[in-house]
Amino acid sequence: YVHWGPTSQDIIDTGLMLRLRQAIALIQADVATTLTALKTLAEDHTATPMAGRTYGQQAAPTSFGAVVASWGWPLIKAHKTLDTLSFPVSLSGAVGTATALGPRPDTLRASVAKALNLDDLNRSWHTDRTPVTDIAQACTDLCTGLAKLGEDLVAMAQSDVGEVQLGSSGASSTMPQKQNPIVPSALIALARTVKGLNTVLQDAAIHRFQRDGAAWFTEWMVLPQIVLGAATAAKQAAALIPNVTPNTGRMLETLTKDGLLFAEALSFALAEQMPRPDAQAAIKALATEVRATGTPMTTLAKNRWPDLPAGLFEPAQSLGTAPAEARAFVAAVAAL
Amino acid sequence: YVHWGPTSQDIIDTGLMLRLRQAIALIQADVATTLTALKTLAEDHTATPMAGRTYGQQAAPTSFGAVVASWGWPLIKAHKTLDTLSFPVSLSGAVGTATALGPRPDTLRASVAKALNLDDLNRSWHTDRTPVTDIAQACTDLCTGLAKLGEDLVAMAQSDVGEVQLGSSGASSTMPQKQNPIVPSALIALARTVKGLNTVLQDAAIHRFQRDGAAWFTEWMVLPQIVLGAATAAKQAAALIPNVTPNTGRMLETLTKDGLLFAEALSFALAEQMPRPDAQAAIKALATEVRATGTPMTTLAKNRWPDLPAGLFEPAQSLGTAPAEARAFVAAVAAL
Amino acid sequence: YVHWGPTSQDIIDTGLMLRLRQAIALIQADVATTLTALKTLAEDHTATPMAGRTYGQQAAPTSFGAVVASWGWPLIKAHKTLDTLSFPVSLSGAVGTATALGPRPDTLRASVAKALNLDDLNRSWHTDRTPVTDIAQACTDLCTGLAKLGEDLVAMAQSDVGEVQLGSSGASSTMPQKQNPIVPSALIALARTVKGLNTVLQDAAIHRFQRDGAAWFTEWMVLPQIVLGAATAAKQAAALIPNVTPNTGRMLETLTKDGLLFAEALSFALAEQMPRPDAQAAIKALATEVRATGTPMTTLAKNRWPDLPAGLFEPAQSLGTAPAEARAFVAAVAAL
Amino acid sequence: YVHWGPTSQDIIDTGLMLRLRQAIALIQADVATTLTALKTLAEDHTATPMAGRTYGQQAAPTSFGAVVASWGWPLIKAHKTLDTLSFPVSLSGAVGTATALGPRPDTLRASVAKALNLDDLNRSWHTDRTPVTDIAQACTDLCTGLAKLGEDLVAMAQSDVGEVQLGSSGASSTMPQKQNPIVPSALIALARTVKGLNTVLQDAAIHRFQRDGAAWFTEWMVLPQIVLGAATAAKQAAALIPNVTPNTGRMLETLTKDGLLFAEALSFALAEQMPRPDAQAAIKALATEVRATGTPMTTLAKNRWPDLPAGLFEPAQSLGTAPAEARAFVAAVAAL
Repeated sequence: YVHWGPTSQDIIDTGLMLRLRQAIALIQADVATTLTALKTLAEDHTATPMAGRTYGQQAAPTSFGAVVASWGWPLIKAHKTLDTLSFPVSLSGAVGTATALGPRPDTLRASVAKALNLDDLNRSWHTDRTPVTDIAQACTDLCTGLAKLGEDLVAMAQSDVGEVQLGSSGASSTMPQKQNPIVPSALIALARTVKGLNTVLQDAAIHRFQRDGAAWFTEWMVLPQIVLGAATAAKQAAALIPNVTPNTGRMLETLTKDGLLFAEALSFALAEQMPRPDAQAAIKALATEVRATGTPMTTLAKNRWPDLPAGLFEPAQSLGTAPAEARAFVAAVAAL
Repeated sequence: YVHWGPTSQDIIDTGLMLRLRQAIALIQADVATTLTALKTLAEDHTATPMAGRTYGQQAAPTSFGAVVASWGWPLIKAHKTLDTLSFPVSLSGAVGTATALGPRPDTLRASVAKALNLDDLNRSWHTDRTPVTDIAQACTDLCTGLAKLGEDLVAMAQSDVGEVQLGSSGASSTMPQKQNPIVPSALIALARTVKGLNTVLQDAAIHRFQRDGAAWFTEWMVLPQIVLGAATAAKQAAALIPNVTPNTGRMLETLTKDGLLFAEALSFALAEQMPRPDAQAAIKALATEVRATGTPMTTLAKNRWPDLPAGLFEPAQSLGTAPAEARAFVAAVAAL
Repeated sequence: YVHWGPTSQDIIDTGLMLRLRQAIALIQADVATTLTALKTLAEDHTATPMAGRTYGQQAAPTSFGAVVASWGWPLIKAHKTLDTLSFPVSLSGAVGTATALGPRPDTLRASVAKALNLDDLNRSWHTDRTPVTDIAQACTDLCTGLAKLGEDLVAMAQSDVGEVQLGSSGASSTMPQKQNPIVPSALIALARTVKGLNTVLQDAAIHRFQRDGAAWFTEWMVLPQIVLGAATAAKQAAALIPNVTPNTGRMLETLTKDGLLFAEALSFALAEQMPRPDAQAAIKALATEVRATGTPMTTLAKNRWPDLPAGLFEPAQSLGTAPAEARAFVAAVAAL
Repeated sequence: YVHWGPTSQDIIDTGLMLRLRQAIALIQADVATTLTALKTLAEDHTATPMAGRTYGQQAAPTSFGAVVASWGWPLIKAHKTLDTLSFPVSLSGAVGTATALGPRPDTLRASVAKALNLDDLNRSWHTDRTPVTDIAQACTDLCTGLAKLGEDLVAMAQSDVGEVQLGSSGASSTMPQKQNPIVPSALIALARTVKGLNTVLQDAAIHRFQRDGAAWFTEWMVLPQIVLGAATAAKQAAALIPNVTPNTGRMLETLTKDGLLFAEALSFALAEQMPRPDAQAAIKALATEVRATGTPMTTLAKNRWPDLPAGLFEPAQSLGTAPAEARAFVAAVAAL
């Protein structure tokens, strides 16, 4: 009797939406858990100094809280996007004209939507897969956000960097010094997989004529994996982040070791006293001297320009807007 | 002086947003033109009967207006999404901490945003490429929508179907009978290309550390092509749709030729009189007779069940909600 | 003890290759079955005339055997490529230096390879995933080949074309006139899915340092689905093709109905007598007359140019190299 | 006259192949240059000790020569694959039947192939895009290989690792300590882009009927970018590698600093004297002591087990097959 009037696609799409609504709710809860843990990290380390890196190169000071905030913003976006998704009922028959669905198919569809707590688009959506692609895109964007966080954790957990601990997982059978960043690596792998599947879903969104087997079957094969991939990533991240601990001693050591991370600050301080090209040339010479002698640039600079602003090389005073970046993120999570 | 405080990425990203805002406005205008043309088609053909097809098979009656509406809904969505995009200024320095941007970098950023008529996210977005991926995703979804329309036009323009004329283009040098559906084919090709590039952009959204060359360079290579691809598709569609003409005679001929397109309607009419499996079996037998004798199913059915509802096989009365689907789309375009 | 010297990746990769060798053998057997069935079709229909179509438009005559040959060539290529794949043993320890694998790790690896009937690359391949990507690429190319065949079968099975029967599958519950091309649609869907996953595998082929979790985990998630996708497509095609039957009557009817498919032939025949532009203009005028009067172009042409070569409009004489194309394919399958 | 018999696709595909043959030759020359430079590096550093890393974690000793070899193998494969590519002439008319190409179209095609120095497939390949997809796949695999090398160079050039110098490029305007790995980053970005475009080309390889506009146009849009992307990557790598210099002092310092990189070697040495689980437990305890006291594990171990094999902690004696891996690569390049 379920098939009396509805076409197979009505039944399957409606069932799909009932399950997707539940899956998305679970994913959103895990994103919220992750955001709460990130908020705590950002709050606790608003002004914890560390080396900011670009192109993998140590560049200038930032704070761990600001770095955590950069992980969190795409997740706030993802959390909000999940709220906007639509889960519509489908009830429009073989070619979308509801011919065998009684005298008032619009009223019928509305009441089925209400009974199932689904949305009613007030039209057929057999070939307009926007509700499906929006859900998959939200999952993909979420995975991308979690992969950024994953990449940074893999990078910061490198033996050569050593600025985070990831909890107890990832032991090696023969190499006890290793802390393999298993979960961050999995976040990257999940994002790659979901991204690839989501591309395929764009093919699935192009139905020929009034319904198209090839498009629909394609959707069947990739959509479940997209949602499961996002759900796994969300769950893994929610378990991971509460156990992430910054190694603040190592961060400070990296930041201050040779003073070169203050080159930019020094450059702008000197540019107050001389033309900027001269300032840059002076610092370039200084950097060469640092490498040759091993004397920190901060020491060399204070010797050469004794009247530099006090605190120019104080990590705590070199963070710029980093603490504000961290606090803005904390406030944004609190407001969710 | 532009580089005094801002990092290269601030300058390039801000310049990018200035151009993207213009490009998106042009794309949106072309989408509006296309929607207006589709509205006219849907209005004129609200109740023009034609064969609805699924899996490439003639299935049951629909109207050309309803088909046009199915093309239009994803474009309405795309048009609305373009309104929600954000084009932010970037001004946060080498590692996102705005250290060399004066005492009030937040105020500075806000005033630059205002001067350039860009948005201010109130934070650094060096590694949060959401503004960029949202724009690219909107372009991709638009292309997917236009490709659906393109696929249907290629299919309906087939010599074997012949239900639409596409205007004057697509002549063959040696085969005068051909009307190559050049623009619809190009819409499909553009969607495929943009879809593939958009996947790459997901890679570009995963920056390592505080800025990442590989991610950023990737964005440079694919984003322009995504936007140009969408712009080309939008412009081509805007020129194409006003010249699309349904061949209503051929549509009616296909619909009524052998009566088999009314099998579903007959099936439900008979199911009022007998158990549904019996109705289906009876029709299956009838379909075999149609194929054997060449007599239309409608004739055979009226002979066998003289008391069938009047108008059961009238195209105009078999359209179900198709006219309502067309009118809903017309109203939605009018409300944009 | 398996882990005494080998690293996890040695064990898993070696196990993977043992299974992949078996899977590829099964796939190849199904491809062979499909090729044999295509060979029969091509042989039986070497010179069965039908309309060749380009851009979905009826263009000029070809033979069904030539069309079948066009389906088969990529499958012959795929069959041959499967023979060239390498399934290597992995045995090189934590960082590829075989430090804990005894005094002669090269000899050990060679004897393990021999015992397991795997290849020996004479080196570590922890980060060189070429063996894996070659297998996946062969699977992807196979799926692409099968999807071409699938697309053509969906297109030729259209109600409006009706040139093939696909066997007994694909019945609709309420529309007995339909023969849904389920398996051809599935072939298309599988190719799309496998293609997307194969892209992801390119990410997995880029290991950082001496082994990389993110890359390796990515491979785990997509490689099985790629191989299963190809295996399913191969098996489905092997079951489908023996049941494909051309509707030769309908093919001939389409080809000869209005004579327009002979426009190209007429054009070159006339170009023997007059400048080519004049020939083309004459035919264009004729085509207009065909559409206006309903008289076939062949009739009009014979009236106007009585001395046209005999047999110019004979389907059997208009096939050009189509029969040779079919025969070349038949010979190539026989030579496998 | 070029169009007298050949269809547009014959002309364009033949022209394409003429250009592709030249492009591939240029690419191959650049790959050869890169391989020669890698050969020199591998030869010079056959036994230069460095830390092998997995999951970004320092794991066990290897040699720089072995690392270079791991970069080179996929490029050797790519170089060989380029030799196997086919560049066929196309000459088969509107629907692949060569109807208007004279009495012996096969002889004609063969002689055109000979005149243009192209291959002759002895058949039409309008819809079998294998020659094109093979070329694009070779380009993609090449880019993937170069991206592996790029990823490792970005990673090894990190300030925190500092094990390679990349030549003179990549200076920062305000941060003189930085050596931005511009070219390696570009190699990664190019691989991502080409990979995405190559996926699209799989769509382009699925032609409907005898020729398909959408498929063909798709090929036009992505193939040039694939080839140009590979050519750019090849050229950049050829310029980069001769300037890559390992920082052998830093490599040795990392390897020997705390002795933990010899944990695996110690583990297997102890397993000669005690059950392996006991050996692993003993080393785990030792590693904790290293972290607590700062005393290198090598010192602690020699104190505790004075009869350990001589040379167990000698970098030069801990390389396993690494030098052999380097030499095998050197020989393979020499044999090209």
